[in-house]
Amino acid sequence: MKLATLRLGDATAAVRVEGTTAVETGFADVGALLRDGGPSVAATADGARHDLTTAEFAPVVTRPGKIICAGLNYRNHILEMGRDLPEHPTLFAKYPEALVGARDAIQLPPESTRVDWEGELAVVVGTRVRRAPVERARAAIAGYAVLNDVTMRDYQYRTLQWLQGKTWEASTPFGPVLATPDELPSDAELVTELDGEEVQRTPIDDLVFDAAALVSYVSTIVTLQPGDVIATGTPGGVGHAREPARYLSVGQTLTTRVDGIGELVNVAVAETRS
Amino acid sequence: MKLATLRLGDATAAVRVEGTTAVETGFADVGALLRDGGPSVAATADGARHDLTTAEFAPVVTRPGKIICAGLNYRNHILEMGRDLPEHPTLFAKYPEALVGARDAIQLPPESTRVDWEGELAVVVGTRVRRAPVERARAAIAGYAVLNDVTMRDYQYRTLQWLQGKTWEASTPFGPVLATPDELPSDAELVTELDGEEVQRTPIDDLVFDAAALVSYVSTIVTLQPGDVIATGTPGGVGHAREPARYLSVGQTLTTRVDGIGELVNVAVAETRS
Repeated sequence: MKLATLRLGDATAAVRVEGTTAVETGFADVGALLRDGGPSVAATADGARHDLTTAEFAPVVTRPGKIICAGLNYRNHILEMGRDLPEHPTLFAKYPEALVGARDAIQLPPESTRVDWEGELAVVVGTRVRRAPVERARAAIAGYAVLNDVTMRDYQYRTLQWLQGKTWEASTPFGPVLATPDELPSDAELVTELDGEEVQRTPIDDLVFDAAALVSYVSTIVTLQPGDVIATGTPGGVGHAREPARYLSVGQTLTTRVDGIGELVNVAVAETRS
Repeated sequence: MKLATLRLGDATAAVRVEGTTAVETGFADVGALLRDGGPSVAATADGARHDLTTAEFAPVVTRPGKIICAGLNYRNHILEMGRDLPEHPTLFAKYPEALVGARDAIQLPPESTRVDWEGELAVVVGTRVRRAPVERARAAIAGYAVLNDVTMRDYQYRTLQWLQGKTWEASTPFGPVLATPDELPSDAELVTELDGEEVQRTPIDDLVFDAAALVSYVSTIVTLQPGDVIATGTPGGVGHAREPARYLSVGQTLTTRVDGIGELVNVAVAETRS
């Protein structure tokens, strides 16, 4: 099953995806659906229908209670950055204001000249869990989405803590759908393209800490709630690590795709100061 | 004016503090009051009254949309850690599940043996702002509270990113009140005590980046909303930097006080695994 959150006028609606048709579920977004409904409600809901080919996607969970990001979590990216395989996951945060929908513009702020891509598989939590061993953690996963952890490298490296490079307003596409775990092939690949040129490709199973391991680890520290999101980290191929370095520029199209889920297609635009 | 959030049975209520009396304002917490009411509504509200001396304090904003923490922001603490004065603030995050009330227990999780104190002045945002210059940032501050950024040092230093040491469940006292800016004396001091022994003391004006500077800086990156919290950083005197190092242990009382605001008094207890 695939679920999405669509913008309908001034409101949003969580929908079940059936081919090119979206069926409203009665919840304002997939986060509310996970908190107050759940997969069985989503599977049987029979609300108003919309044409998905012309629909406008909101971030699939519009306002996650927590967005936790893993860094340095693909073997190939760790080697690219010249580091050793880690004993523990590296974790940092992103705030909900950073999220945009699957076809929205990525805002390039005038303050940064080094905006980079980081295509990622995102895990969406479906059940409240604390100190979940790996199997219970796996059962708590509602599904998967695609996220591009777009990063302002100049701000990321201003200090030792990465947060300020990771949470710029309207910079992080997230969606297009939440795909339940059965939709994700075991040999799924994550691919990032810049104007159609492939810049990242990895099998998902190259993750050092997989989705269930991350849910388990984070839940040791803090309760995970329905709608919380864990971005699992990016593989090799980011612009900053290239020789010469490459960054996103105005007008470029960033495409981020995971087999079994779908793709984000986002154009980089110059943010107007507000 | 001072505002607090009290627990009343299963609910919470934002109150105005008048000496030892609390007057209900009609909002569920100070966060909702800031979003939907504002200072003038708080000043004139005339709801049910409670005795503050026996009241139970919730975190003053029960669920901030964002909790942004500054690190390495007191000149004396930076020198204690052997670092240079920074050009930019160091920022990291904490999630709302970490917060507890002003008299609640601090949960010492069985996974950590190095739980440390970090007394801090917290800023609560009152007005939505983006890219606010310093004077507009100052005007967007609803008030100040006390926060102890209790830190699991072993987890903080497992990787380069501090988040996993900073956001343990029910570990961060926050309150007791939000004091409007006029309540904070310009020579206010922040004091932390462990079982009555003073372990941290600093004048607030030793901050490298003060409250308005932090609101301005963060608002460049991402929109700040009413109820968002910025913890401004801790001064010298943390346990980890002592020789020998000292950590919180079960039964100890941690007191954190800022002149003009009030104090947090929290007993450390052994968390039961859940």
